Amino acid sequence: MKQHLTLLGALVCFFLLSISSNAAAGDIQSAQSAVGPSTEQLESDLNTTFVLISAALVFFMQAGFCLLELGCVRAKNCLNVVMKNAVDFCIAMICFLFVGFGLMFGATAMGLLGTEITWLSTFNGDSQLWVFWIFQAVFVATAATITSGAMAERTTFIGYCAYTVLISGIIYPILGHWSWGSFAGDYAPGFGGTSGWLESLGFSDFAGSTVVHSIGGACALAGVLVIGPRKGRFAKNGDPLLISGHNIPLVALGTFILCFGWFGFNCGSNLAAGNEIGRIAVNTMVAAASGGLLGLAAFWIRDGRPEPLSTMNGILGGLVAITACCNVVTPASAVIIGAIAGVVSTLGSELLLKFKIDDVVGAIPVHLFNGIWGTLSVALFNEAGFAGKQLGVQALGAFSTSIAAFVAAFIGFKIIHATIGLRASEEEEEDGLDFSEHASNAYPDFRSE
Amino acid sequence: MKQHLTLLGALVCFFLLSISSNAAAGDIQSAQSAVGPSTEQLESDLNTTFVLISAALVFFMQAGFCLLELGCVRAKNCLNVVMKNAVDFCIAMICFLFVGFGLMFGATAMGLLGTEITWLSTFNGDSQLWVFWIFQAVFVATAATITSGAMAERTTFIGYCAYTVLISGIIYPILGHWSWGSFAGDYAPGFGGTSGWLESLGFSDFAGSTVVHSIGGACALAGVLVIGPRKGRFAKNGDPLLISGHNIPLVALGTFILCFGWFGFNCGSNLAAGNEIGRIAVNTMVAAASGGLLGLAAFWIRDGRPEPLSTMNGILGGLVAITACCNVVTPASAVIIGAIAGVVSTLGSELLLKFKIDDVVGAIPVHLFNGIWGTLSVALFNEAGFAGKQLGVQALGAFSTSIAAFVAAFIGFKIIHATIGLRASEEEEEDGLDFSEHASNAYPDFRSE
Amino acid sequence: MKQHLTLLGALVCFFLLSISSNAAAGDIQSAQSAVGPSTEQLESDLNTTFVLISAALVFFMQAGFCLLELGCVRAKNCLNVVMKNAVDFCIAMICFLFVGFGLMFGATAMGLLGTEITWLSTFNGDSQLWVFWIFQAVFVATAATITSGAMAERTTFIGYCAYTVLISGIIYPILGHWSWGSFAGDYAPGFGGTSGWLESLGFSDFAGSTVVHSIGGACALAGVLVIGPRKGRFAKNGDPLLISGHNIPLVALGTFILCFGWFGFNCGSNLAAGNEIGRIAVNTMVAAASGGLLGLAAFWIRDGRPEPLSTMNGILGGLVAITACCNVVTPASAVIIGAIAGVVSTLGSELLLKFKIDDVVGAIPVHLFNGIWGTLSVALFNEAGFAGKQLGVQALGAFSTSIAAFVAAFIGFKIIHATIGLRASEEEEEDGLDFSEHASNAYPDFRSE
Repeated sequence: MKQHLTLLGALVCFFLLSISSNAAAGDIQSAQSAVGPSTEQLESDLNTTFVLISAALVFFMQAGFCLLELGCVRAKNCLNVVMKNAVDFCIAMICFLFVGFGLMFGATAMGLLGTEITWLSTFNGDSQLWVFWIFQAVFVATAATITSGAMAERTTFIGYCAYTVLISGIIYPILGHWSWGSFAGDYAPGFGGTSGWLESLGFSDFAGSTVVHSIGGACALAGVLVIGPRKGRFAKNGDPLLISGHNIPLVALGTFILCFGWFGFNCGSNLAAGNEIGRIAVNTMVAAASGGLLGLAAFWIRDGRPEPLSTMNGILGGLVAITACCNVVTPASAVIIGAIAGVVSTLGSELLLKFKIDDVVGAIPVHLFNGIWGTLSVALFNEAGFAGKQLGVQALGAFSTSIAAFVAAFIGFKIIHATIGLRASEEEEEDGLDFSEHASNAYPDFRSE
Repeated sequence: MKQHLTLLGALVCFFLLSISSNAAAGDIQSAQSAVGPSTEQLESDLNTTFVLISAALVFFMQAGFCLLELGCVRAKNCLNVVMKNAVDFCIAMICFLFVGFGLMFGATAMGLLGTEITWLSTFNGDSQLWVFWIFQAVFVATAATITSGAMAERTTFIGYCAYTVLISGIIYPILGHWSWGSFAGDYAPGFGGTSGWLESLGFSDFAGSTVVHSIGGACALAGVLVIGPRKGRFAKNGDPLLISGHNIPLVALGTFILCFGWFGFNCGSNLAAGNEIGRIAVNTMVAAASGGLLGLAAFWIRDGRPEPLSTMNGILGGLVAITACCNVVTPASAVIIGAIAGVVSTLGSELLLKFKIDDVVGAIPVHLFNGIWGTLSVALFNEAGFAGKQLGVQALGAFSTSIAAFVAAFIGFKIIHATIGLRASEEEEEDGLDFSEHASNAYPDFRSE
Repeated sequence: MKQHLTLLGALVCFFLLSISSNAAAGDIQSAQSAVGPSTEQLESDLNTTFVLISAALVFFMQAGFCLLELGCVRAKNCLNVVMKNAVDFCIAMICFLFVGFGLMFGATAMGLLGTEITWLSTFNGDSQLWVFWIFQAVFVATAATITSGAMAERTTFIGYCAYTVLISGIIYPILGHWSWGSFAGDYAPGFGGTSGWLESLGFSDFAGSTVVHSIGGACALAGVLVIGPRKGRFAKNGDPLLISGHNIPLVALGTFILCFGWFGFNCGSNLAAGNEIGRIAVNTMVAAASGGLLGLAAFWIRDGRPEPLSTMNGILGGLVAITACCNVVTPASAVIIGAIAGVVSTLGSELLLKFKIDDVVGAIPVHLFNGIWGTLSVALFNEAGFAGKQLGVQALGAFSTSIAAFVAAFIGFKIIHATIGLRASEEEEEDGLDFSEHASNAYPDFRSE
């Protein structure tokens, strides 16, 4: 009780010290003007509102990725998963704030990267850049977190953090500049100038099948190649052995959250309200649906049972694929694009196993393979008609970006591996990363098998 | 490593093949006009944005229903639950795209059903139909998924999928046409004509207490009657035996998600922004609150303890009931409507047990009984005053729609039962559907009782 | 089968009774005018839409708080947690509807409390008050639920319910009036008049660091002092003993949901769309990020391991702190404010242990300490420049409100304790509240340690 009084006493002292004279009353919230605004102003405010809410939805995908990975790992690695997925967001925001945004959207240097490093000073209370920044920042976090799931259950926490700095501060911003760099218009006072080099060629990636998903997926491929498969994932003869995820309902919840967030991801990428956002939403959801059905069917036909993870990854594959082209295809095309994506997700996972690549959540087929597929679909299914030239440009963009991301991440992971360490030791992996890295247990009340 | 090189090689080959000439640069994203838009255009864009975000919220209810059902079943049936709730969404989207939407909103045939089967061709990039479609499509998914929870733990996956085709492609669209069919206006170029027959009589169901919830609940009743109760749910003498859900926190999370989504469900049904959406939100939330308190109280008084499921179903019952009338009642009335709904949820569950009906999640009292109650409330609590005639019309609409849904679903379930099978065998049920249907385990790391 | 026929018969009878004459067809949904609206009307509709969606996001934070608390308690108290977090929302809505709103926003009595008790009659279909009400109501629920986590695992359900009536009906509305009471403008026809006394002094708390978080946190401090620590939380010599939460992934999911909801909490508090909401979102998210990193770092440096709860509470501390000042600081300042908040969260938790205060989730450092810190930051980091006077006003507001909340809650808890009971018995605590209060089990299928 005495201690409580001490605490109270401290509060009261501070209170007394703080008594001060009257200040002019100012209601900061009643800022609405009595005069009607212009339609230009209203349009701007509507677009800002729309993009802001979309950013919130995209942010929430972070929870979806976290749950998806959680469900796919064993109980002994769950703390590690939540730490990676919370901290990569934190790191991505800070890196993108101070470095990445200028590299991505600053005035271009020969179409290769942005050079605006003093952008912070160009922001002010009236700028549309604010909402553009938050929308782009949650995209960075998405690209960064894709890698986490593929490399789960054997990556050190500190190594993963170092990688997050790399992708969110450098890899994603520079490669993203190639496609989206010259963004100009209402959202970019003070930026712009010449375009990114892919953009100059006519490359089109509406919401980031390549920029977000293929980059994230390519980094994931680099990561799993550098660290190798989990202990016990492949038999001596090379046959894959099943390591079951510990909580499949979390995988489902994660997938639902990702679908929900994708409304913001794809529709928000329009950066403006209008009837076209309805079309984008329709295409996005029907591609998800056909992806889920075909991902399920492909597995069912081969293995004789309806299996959850292939269904979920089919849905996600459909979403990734439609991301580049949702604004230029018909719903019937979206169904086809999604369906093929679902098959790619399921068969892609099996393909990786043939190469003894251990991708815990299926991030590589879902994000890399379907990111490429979706980028090609912009040309293949464009309702304006097929153009061979455009297909070439799309392929060029998808592959050059993916390869560059792969190479950069491969080098980065190798350096991390050689310095601070990227792969947990055999013993740590056996004990579980929750114990070895975090000295704790995610589920202390439940008895594990 | 050699295999990795092969993979890389393949990527590079495709890359080289794809080199192509320059294409004209076109920034697809900077489509904003420099000229100020008209206020009509802005109003349309605002409404589109609002309905789109509402659709996203309603979509997310799919996760809520999934979690609610997950929490109420035993651990051995969880994979089956996630599969049903993911795949019914996929099926509903595809069926509604190619069949259901035309049957529901096409030009009417004597007020009974829509006949527009070529609607896909009427869509174009500038149409408001896009956002109307996505909003209606997520409603279909909601109606479909209501049934899943009632029939949990003993229904075959394939049988459930067949039912989903039926409700989303035929039952919901045709019966929904009765109430909402003649929707015309900005959202429906090319549609319209005469009204659905209930609409012609003056039937009013604002956001679907009848159209979504009673239809879903009536199908659930048909389903549980066709398949019968779970093994062990009733003693030989007919007394109900408790089968506890395996994870009550998931039930709570599901309920929170459903409440969250209901903001979109009810407010979005206004299809236009305006002060009235605030009123709808207020009524929706206070009805949920009083429903929760009375659902809790009704159980507490009878059983002597505050019980979670009755609280959650009280909240949901309040939400279902207010859905039809949230735009025409005062908040005080909403409190009363919700309170009665909470009691209906709790006592309705007990009533079903008297008839030896095994509804795992309480979907029938929550959605069917309270759907009817809410539809009647439109007349009983209308702030414009009570009108006996209107009450008759509301009753006619609620019961004719519910009975038609019940009969159609009953026949459908009987046919599915007799052909591809609807009820799992005793042994499969004993083993759990996760093992018998999906050959896997939702929680391999945890030891079950 | 006979019983089913009885049920059907009853439905048919009601149906026949309900046949009624034609009523005039009226399409309640096609209310859109053909004439273009004014820009004032459009601005109002846009703001209403924005605030409504923000309210939905803030509502969803209820799920976040519930999950955070769930994850931090032992499996034997989970039903109790879900009941508290569902029922406090229900109680808060009803109390705020009939009592709290008038006390908070009614015409002021000497700046101390609102006096409008007939507000229900001033509402009508065209009022902007509707959306203002729902936005404020979900804030009340947030303030109320903060306390729940701190007092977890040893508080009676009925005692907690009584407290919820107190805070949502009286404490929060009256103390909130001090800062926000005179809100006038488009949202408040019929209200206003002179300001709350803190507002008159120039006190500024944009989105409620003090009004929501410090009040909630101060009540939490009062509560844990009244009931004392959990059995076994401190050794005989006063050293704290670890009681591990049963499900850390739920803590992470709760944190993600809270971040997501905070988009609505802070941006929506602008009550109007505009470029400034983008700035608010940027500041909010970067403060969360730096808070997470520093909360993590502070623990890591002291304990030698990266720990999840300190990371999550760092994120939440950053969010609480930026809440008061997100509209008047630069992003660089936001990073600093968040970083300090992260350290406050981590060290604040350790400080409480020194006083043998058992705060299960860390609500007191996160909400009370960082609420005060954020409120001071309005003066310390204001981009308009530092003003000593303003710092005094901010300190006065933060401490007077916190102390008043503490005193009121302390008295309230003491009375509840002495009458209906607030602390579970030793035996009940040992058995777990799920058994003693709710006679059930949250996870019947899993074997507990």
